[in-house]
Amino acid sequence: MTGRMQPAAVVAMVGAGQLARMTQQAAVDLAVELRVLARSADEPAVLAGAPAIFGDPGDPAALHTMAAGADVLTFDHELVPAQPLRDLVAAGHRVHPGPDALAAAQDKLHARRLLGQAGFPVPAFCPVAGPEDVERFAAEHGWPVVLKARSGGYDGRGVIVARHGGDLPEDLARRAADGGPTWLAEAHVELAAELAVLVARRPSGATVTYPVAQTTQVDGICRHLVTPAGVADDLAWEAAELAQRVVQHVGGTGVCAVELFVGPAGRLLVNELALRPHNSGHATIEANATSQFHQHLRAVLDWPLGPTELRAPAAAMVNLIPGPGAGDPVANLPAALEVPGAHVHLYAKASRPGRKVGHVTALGASTTAALDVAARTVDILLQP
Amino acid sequence: MTGRMQPAAVVAMVGAGQLARMTQQAAVDLAVELRVLARSADEPAVLAGAPAIFGDPGDPAALHTMAAGADVLTFDHELVPAQPLRDLVAAGHRVHPGPDALAAAQDKLHARRLLGQAGFPVPAFCPVAGPEDVERFAAEHGWPVVLKARSGGYDGRGVIVARHGGDLPEDLARRAADGGPTWLAEAHVELAAELAVLVARRPSGATVTYPVAQTTQVDGICRHLVTPAGVADDLAWEAAELAQRVVQHVGGTGVCAVELFVGPAGRLLVNELALRPHNSGHATIEANATSQFHQHLRAVLDWPLGPTELRAPAAAMVNLIPGPGAGDPVANLPAALEVPGAHVHLYAKASRPGRKVGHVTALGASTTAALDVAARTVDILLQP
Repeated sequence: MTGRMQPAAVVAMVGAGQLARMTQQAAVDLAVELRVLARSADEPAVLAGAPAIFGDPGDPAALHTMAAGADVLTFDHELVPAQPLRDLVAAGHRVHPGPDALAAAQDKLHARRLLGQAGFPVPAFCPVAGPEDVERFAAEHGWPVVLKARSGGYDGRGVIVARHGGDLPEDLARRAADGGPTWLAEAHVELAAELAVLVARRPSGATVTYPVAQTTQVDGICRHLVTPAGVADDLAWEAAELAQRVVQHVGGTGVCAVELFVGPAGRLLVNELALRPHNSGHATIEANATSQFHQHLRAVLDWPLGPTELRAPAAAMVNLIPGPGAGDPVANLPAALEVPGAHVHLYAKASRPGRKVGHVTALGASTTAALDVAARTVDILLQP
Repeated sequence: MTGRMQPAAVVAMVGAGQLARMTQQAAVDLAVELRVLARSADEPAVLAGAPAIFGDPGDPAALHTMAAGADVLTFDHELVPAQPLRDLVAAGHRVHPGPDALAAAQDKLHARRLLGQAGFPVPAFCPVAGPEDVERFAAEHGWPVVLKARSGGYDGRGVIVARHGGDLPEDLARRAADGGPTWLAEAHVELAAELAVLVARRPSGATVTYPVAQTTQVDGICRHLVTPAGVADDLAWEAAELAQRVVQHVGGTGVCAVELFVGPAGRLLVNELALRPHNSGHATIEANATSQFHQHLRAVLDWPLGPTELRAPAAAMVNLIPGPGAGDPVANLPAALEVPGAHVHLYAKASRPGRKVGHVTALGASTTAALDVAARTVDILLQP
């Protein structure tokens, strides 16, 4: 061997979890050097071989080191303060998604206001400065009331379904750093279904949308999804169109995920927004013409986007989330590979109850068939 | 992040080229730790993040270091002496493919004899100890005569098509280290087509075969391939069956590639044998239910093998081989990504004429359509 190709680009990603890990696999195809900001050498992307800078995502110096010499700075999570990102943009660095767009994924109250004021359908909501705000909201919209932490929640953390005034958290009246409330209240929506739509958008504006997925949550954490979604074609079309407008409105760049409620009478409501590759897009690795991880790299680099169509009639993805008493997925892996057509992805995270440590994707002639393969495989991976 | 999952297995791979690079991407999915034996930090698998041990594949100490603590030792090339591998096996290490099987891929004369004596169809051949052997062979089989170096040749190197006695190489009478000839002569076969069949075999015996691919060589180096092969179904079936018997006969383990000639009257002849993931299997990453790189890990670890069927009506793979005056694939990458449906794989090797620095795969409704997409993309990657 004599001599290496120069990297096609250097992408700096804040965070080194499973999203960065799978982005690293895609980066290898494109000869993109992915540099990750990690807290420790045990993080999933570091174990996958991504060059790491060790530091805190809240530390402006670490962010500056990440951005130096990179073509673009991007994220595998949203827990990054805005000001250092604004400083990087002011210094001429490319940051995608940008700090203004990122605020919509960081702050649920901001996102609700931004989208609600623009006329997007969102659940009824109000900021919560104390128990009296919740009581007043419930008087108008009824119980239960969904209480959400303005920021920092994920996988069901930071969400409380309050059935009456006795369910309210103790820190409801605490103030956020900006003096605003730390909680918001939302009307509880009777759900016919939950949908997730991936949208990829280049800084120069071009946008592609993925086929709509239907997700199933348990305790606020996604257990599995299927594509195509089990809803009428015109509703799926409406969901895709709505998601694309949401991403354009907030100025998202890169891959963005828009989670939607299908409420009573098939009415769509915007639930959550993530401006990064997302759990709801993991099946795209095998199921779609371009995986969300390749697409994210292409989008943040302002390179041409790839096609998004499904490459099989149906796909399913089941998250690997050990419950109490679950077995070791690593020890069970050979047995799980007996299931034909299961695509197992392990994140190299120690297994513990409630933690997402991998996922399994399967393709099939129908969502039922694909889900059966993926779910059986997960059952084997978790068997005691 | 707190704590990593133990690796599902540790696989040590001798070599750190593009095959090891793509195996590393697959290893990440399965939480397999892939350790590569590299000559330098610039090699493709090291740049992809595989943990590396630096050393020479001919150095018994380096091989011992590789095998220590690994579940299995395997290879991304055949240039490994047999004795240190036999010593490792004797010391209780698992080595797949094993040294006896590997000899069939290392020594073309040995392979021809082994397969010829067992009744497999091979081109007429004879060992060459000097020009008189070639003249005698030509008197029986006619010119041209194909001269092949017994070992070390690849991508057309070590193969000479001699049209008459004046074409013979000067070192024809040189002796190999074992006292045997360094060249063999083969009858030139009028080719109707060339086929390649991937077979994966577990040490415990289970075997799967991939759909047959048709390859196109220029100057002895594979330029492109398509799957399904453009031959009659019964010939493809015969090719798959023949390849599987060849692999079983030589005792191959892991992924093995059998290259076949389709000679006059549709007669199949065994050409070359590789006991590792192979260029002819690169399209399996996107095109087949299990990629050859996942499959190789599964096979050498004696884990259940995955299904092999095509996931699209047709697939094509075109190697990225710069000619004189070619442009820089990295600089051309964004333009190449304009072609919808092209899956670009760059190996992070410096571009120079005649060197394989990547490949492009495309799926399609027909091999013609898929080949058109992949070839157009390669043309753009190489444009000056």
